[in-house]
Formats: sequence, structure tokens, C-alpha cells
Amino acid sequence: MSEASTQRPLRVGLAGLGTVGAGTYELLLRNRNEIARRASRPIEVVAVSDKDLGRVAELTKGLTPVEPDAMALATRNDIDVVVELIGGDGFAKTLMLAAIDAGRHIVTANKALLAKHANEIFGHAHSRGTFIGFEAAVAGGIPIIKALREGLAANRIQSVTGIINGTTNFILTEMREKGLAFSEVLAEAQRLGYAEADPTFDVEGVDAAHKISLLSAIAFGTAVHFDQAHIEGITKLSSRDISYAEQMGYRIKLLGITKRKPGGIELRVHPTLVPEDVLMASVEGAMNAVHVLGDAVGHTLYYGKGAGAMPTASAVVADLIDLARLLEAAPEARVPYLGVAASAKQDLPVLPIAEIESGFYLRLGVKDEPGVLADITRRVADSGISIDAFIQHPGGGGEGQTEVILITHPCIERQIRLAVAQLSALPSVVSDCTVLRVESFQ
Amino acid sequence: MSEASTQRPLRVGLAGLGTVGAGTYELLLRNRNEIARRASRPIEVVAVSDKDLGRVAELTKGLTPVEPDAMALATRNDIDVVVELIGGDGFAKTLMLAAIDAGRHIVTANKALLAKHANEIFGHAHSRGTFIGFEAAVAGGIPIIKALREGLAANRIQSVTGIINGTTNFILTEMREKGLAFSEVLAEAQRLGYAEADPTFDVEGVDAAHKISLLSAIAFGTAVHFDQAHIEGITKLSSRDISYAEQMGYRIKLLGITKRKPGGIELRVHPTLVPEDVLMASVEGAMNAVHVLGDAVGHTLYYGKGAGAMPTASAVVADLIDLARLLEAAPEARVPYLGVAASAKQDLPVLPIAEIESGFYLRLGVKDEPGVLADITRRVADSGISIDAFIQHPGGGGEGQTEVILITHPCIERQIRLAVAQLSALPSVVSDCTVLRVESFQ
Repeated sequence: MSEASTQRPLRVGLAGLGTVGAGTYELLLRNRNEIARRASRPIEVVAVSDKDLGRVAELTKGLTPVEPDAMALATRNDIDVVVELIGGDGFAKTLMLAAIDAGRHIVTANKALLAKHANEIFGHAHSRGTFIGFEAAVAGGIPIIKALREGLAANRIQSVTGIINGTTNFILTEMREKGLAFSEVLAEAQRLGYAEADPTFDVEGVDAAHKISLLSAIAFGTAVHFDQAHIEGITKLSSRDISYAEQMGYRIKLLGITKRKPGGIELRVHPTLVPEDVLMASVEGAMNAVHVLGDAVGHTLYYGKGAGAMPTASAVVADLIDLARLLEAAPEARVPYLGVAASAKQDLPVLPIAEIESGFYLRLGVKDEPGVLADITRRVADSGISIDAFIQHPGGGGEGQTEVILITHPCIERQIRLAVAQLSALPSVVSDCTVLRVESFQ
Repeated sequence: MSEASTQRPLRVGLAGLGTVGAGTYELLLRNRNEIARRASRPIEVVAVSDKDLGRVAELTKGLTPVEPDAMALATRNDIDVVVELIGGDGFAKTLMLAAIDAGRHIVTANKALLAKHANEIFGHAHSRGTFIGFEAAVAGGIPIIKALREGLAANRIQSVTGIINGTTNFILTEMREKGLAFSEVLAEAQRLGYAEADPTFDVEGVDAAHKISLLSAIAFGTAVHFDQAHIEGITKLSSRDISYAEQMGYRIKLLGITKRKPGGIELRVHPTLVPEDVLMASVEGAMNAVHVLGDAVGHTLYYGKGAGAMPTASAVVADLIDLARLLEAAPEARVPYLGVAASAKQDLPVLPIAEIESGFYLRLGVKDEPGVLADITRRVADSGISIDAFIQHPGGGGEGQTEVILITHPCIERQIRLAVAQLSALPSVVSDCTVLRVESFQ
């Protein structure tokens, strides 16, 4: 007889049977023996709840009791943990707070809710001694929260940088490989189910910002500062820039970036040029990857599927297994929500975007005349910015015009803005200046 | 006042101040505030021990008491945990068992000791309720043991495949980039400190086998089967094969591979062809990476430095932080040594190498005559093996000869051995057949 069977089960109430909820239900059933071996006790779904009762019946085949009222499920006495897979920051928040009040533990994949209300929710949970697992909220099945909170806990983390939205990475990969425009690829992605009917949160970078805000708080032991993140999506990105970047040895990726700097932390999401010889550049399609730089460990990278029913369920159930082991232990034995106890947080200011340090990619349409290049490079040099690479694309921009593309060495964004203003005032410059940031991973 | 300061320190006895021991000592000192925030208590080195007293004095500058007798250190009453960084499976084993007997917890980087004696040591530690952390034993600072034991615990793991020896990966990278022979690069690696004076354990694959044996036991919930691992190193690898592989779109890596199969598990270390478009192929120099395929999570990969003072210290201290949090908790609250409780282990047999399934690379010297290629491909096809790619290299092998290189689709190794025996018997075949395995990561 295995030890697993001598322990009472961890009793789960599963709220929300959408893609991830259904995946979690299936995974707990399919791998129940393996899961019990690793959790040292069985994990049992005691009740499920979803507004679509037809879907519930189809999924559970009558094997699991249905609780029509999710709020009642969240506070039932015969449940140890509420798995919140409803999503959004409306009803899910009410439900979560009620469950915490009732002393229930929580496992969730809800990045939007935590990014906006983590400080309130974790504060509440802390006062009630409640566990909150949210591995599934960032990068799907990749155990990146565990890596940051525990595996790399000895490090002073310097940066966390990731492809943490599969939809946009799929779109960027297709734009590059097929030379298509954003809107064409988005339509294809929607047809294939890689993008939602309303893709705003993904393509505008909001989803990635939710996730990098959580990783930032864990990496630096601060509160969650989603409201101060700088966010740019990929909707305005031109396939021309993807192609020029490629000619210069770069791929364009939508990155979430957070860094520790002397004056505070950087927290931003934007399309970014990545040198083609770093691993991050080879992360294609809907895959995710997170790069972490620590003072002791150096460069590390974590790669896998960032979304989908089963990868996300893998993370949900991993949290349940952690909880199963710690069910009878004191709350102090658990890893603090954001890696450090609330009382040990150090609040570092989020730096304004103008203060960040980065390499930059500039594209300008100019008149095809003698002396133009010299004018441009002189202005850039006069602004104290050093140029790393330079190409000119004859014919780009139209008749009698040419396009000039520069990549700079790292400088402060404020400097680039000044330089761009000066360049735009040159009579030979005939277009707006396209500006993208560059991340070297060095 | 932070919560950290209200808890008593975790008291460490540090045995062995070589590269990793010195790194651990330094890291605990340098990041002590960050570490205390994350451990919720200070971590203090109470005493150190090393046979080189001059080195001890230089490192500790008199700040930490020295215990001249490591065995006395291991059983001191004022120590919670012994960090064993002596290495080897002689004295280190005696010390570890004595420390466990005395009720001390253990953190170690000693893969050789655990690969050979894990079953005895973990059994002993289990009976005494003692923690053993060994994250540092595999892949340095990459938290791969935590990922497998906890982060992916919901999965039925299908395979674990890794570049887990930095010395050999450095040598293979140099051989490919510079076209040099193994012996030339080894000498350079020794000069640069990437290879030890006696490099046998690294270049013969033994170190990688220690590590993959530990990962295999965790992945599949079995005992550690190092004694049954199939081990081939890189000493006989020709730069010609590296070059041919590259022409065919592959890189050669020394991989540790373990897979779950219907009849048991595969457990092996050998030079392996990897398609150049998978991430593993781009892991260069002394870096490590581990690929894990799980039934729910799909493909994941973990990348970082696999050796060196600070990366390894990062893993040692992460284990200390885990222990610090769980110090007052019951042993059941901890993750079992190999991911599942001893009573829940399932012993799966290790398959003989002849029974493994793999793609294969074959290189043959043949007479440069009409009909030779047809003969060879017919023999291979008659053996039930299907050919994926094929090149012929005129001039390879000498006057009037040519070299033929085949890559097969996956088949059972026994089939390849039969086919090779038949090929070698052909009068037109004038050399031994070089055989390498191929891993597609699909």
C-alpha cells in the first residue's frame, strides 16, 4: 500500500470549465495515480461550477457533483481549495475574496485579476493564512514562477525578459516567414484559434504586461506595479521593419522586460529587436520563453508552451500538488506569494519610459541626395549616441527617396527622443521616424 | 522590522571550500539580506571545514570559525544543515551518513555520490526524517530538479534529454567551429580551465551519466539506476563526423537521454546528432540545457550555466532557502527526495541498449565503383530500416574510395547492428562503419 492512500485527499472545487478548466479536470482524472504519488495524497474534484450546464454535463459525465452557484462552491465546507478558472477581474475577484474569507485556499490562472489586484488579494490572503497558487497565470506550463520564487532565490535578479504571449509571437513569426502584414496574419490566427475574436489584450501587449508585472514583483521583491508598466503592442508594426531587422541580423519579438537599475526598476512591453544568435530569437510560433539574469546564476532561459488547455492545466495541478504537501503545515512553511514576506518588501520606483536604457532601431525616409547620410549620422553623434549598424535601402519610401535604418548602442530613451526630434526637423527627412527598441541579452 | 529578523537563523556547517564551497560562502555573505528576505530567516555559516587551512583563512578572513575535523563539523549540535561540497564517494559518503545519523539536514552538489548511493543515502535520510537538497548536483544553477520534482509534477513525463556536461559541450563546440580534433581542443580546454587535469569523467560521459541517472529516477519515480546506464563519451568522435553532420543539417552534442517506453526506461549517454533547428542545437560552449517532454505540458527546455562557482552556489543556496522555510515543518511537508515517496516508487526495468529506439547516422568507406550505393541502400532497406537522408563524399577515405553517410528514420538499435554487420560483409565496403545516434526532439 502506498503512503498516498493513507492521507486524506485534497478536496478541490473547480470554478469555471472553459478551456483551462476542462483541461484541469481531464488532467486530474487522467494522471490521478501519478499525481497522488507526487502529492503524497489523492487530489479529488469534489464539485464543479460553470454557467454552461450542458458543457459541465458533457465534461463530467455525471461523475462529479455540479454546484450551480459558483459563490456557494467557493465557500463550501467540504472543499480545501478553490481553483478559479473563470477569468476576468469582475465576478472572479468577488468569488476569490469570498473564498479567502471562508478560509479556502486558491489556485488560479487569472493574470488580469492578479496584475491589477494582487496587492489587495495577497494582503487579504496573508491575513487569513491562505495559500494562493498562480503558476498558471504566467507562461502556461513553464514553471517560471517557481524558478524565480524558489530556484533562483539566492540571486539578486538583474532582469527578467520574456516572450510571454503566444498569440503575438505566432503573428510575428508568420509576418516574418511569409512577409505578410499584421492584419492578414491576425485574420489567419483567428481562423486557426491562435487569436481570440477580440484580440485586443494580446495584440496591444496588455496580457504580456499583466504577466511581466507579476514576474517583476517576484524578481525584485516589490509590490505589483501593472498600473505603471509602459505598454506597446504590435498592431502598428510594419512587415518592412521585420524585414529590415532581419537584414541586420535581428528578429522582432514582443517582449515583456523588467530590469533592476540604480534608480528603480524598468517595466515595459513592446516590440523589440533581438539578435538572431541568442536563443530568444529562435522561439517561434506560439511558444513562450523567459530569460532571467541573476548575479550568481548568470543567464538562464525557460521555454515551453505558454497557453492551451493542457500546458496551463499542468501548472494549475502543480500548484495543487504543492498545496497538497503543505496542507497541514503552518503558513510560514509556504513560499510567500511574491517570493518575500509582505513585511520584507522593498518598494522600488518604476522608472518612466524616458529614463530606460536600450539600444534603438530608427527608420527614416529621406531625400536621395548627396550629404543626407552625413547630416543624419552627424546629428545622431552630436546627441551623444553611438551608431552600431547602418543600412540604406534605395527605393524605400518612393520616387527620389531612400530609407535609412540605424541601430544604436544602448543609450537613455530621452536622448533618442531628442535626436529623433532633431532628425525630423532636417529638410532632407521626409517621413516620420519609426523607433523600435533593441535588447542584446548580454 | 522585517519578519526575517524574528526567526532564528538556519545554521550551516560548510564542509569543503573548493570552487563551489568558496562560491557558496561568498554568495551567502554577499546576498545575505536578499537571501534572508526570501528564506524568511537569516542563513548563517556557523563553521567551515577544509583540509587546506591556508585557503580557509584566506577565504573567511577569520570571520567564521574553522572546524579542523570535517567529521566533527558534520555532527556538531549547533548546526542544522551540513553543506557537503567535498566531492567524491569516499570520505564524503562517510561524512554524509554520519551527519544524517546525527539528525543533520544535508545540502550537496555531489552527483557521483548520489548516482551511486542515492538509494542507500535517501533510505537512511528518510528513516531519520532528514532533508537532502541536491539541486546543485545536476546542471549547476538551472533549477531542473525543482522543475521536474515540482513544476512538472502533474505530468506523466515521457523523456528528459540534456546537455548536462559543460566541458564536453565546450569541446564539441570548438571542434565544430574550428574544425579541430578532439585531442587538440581538449588541450586548449585544459589550458582555459574548462577541463580538468584528469578529464576522464567528463569526456567519457560518466559525469553526464551520473546526472541523467538522477533526473531519470525523478522523472519516472524509480530508484536511481546509474549502474545500468549505457555510457559513451566523445573521445572517439571524429571532426569529420561533426562536419558531415553539419552538412546534413545536424549538430553533434553529448546528450544524457532517458525515456519512458512500454517495456521500461531508456537510460543512456552518447554523442548524438541533433537537428540544427531545435533549440538544443544552439546550446553552445560550456552552457547546459535540459529538455523535458511531459504529456500535459508538451516540450519544455531549461537553459543556463551548468558549472562554475557562482552558478552552482546559486543552486546550493536555493536548497538552503527551501530548508529554511521548512525547518519547523513535518518531513511530510517536504518534497520527497526523488519526487515520490519511497513507498510509491515503481521500479521500471532499464532497457538494454540494443532495445532502444533511435534514428542512426552511419558512415562507411566504400570502393568508388558503380552499383555500390544501390547495394548499400538495398541492404539497409532489406533490414526493415528506412533512410531519411543520404550523402556521398567523393575523395573521403582515400584513393579510389568514397564515403557514404546515411541517416535513418527511427528503428530499434538491434536492427541497426544487424544491418551494419551485413554492410560490413559487402566486398565494396572497405572501412569499419561509424555509427552515431540521432535525436529529433519531436
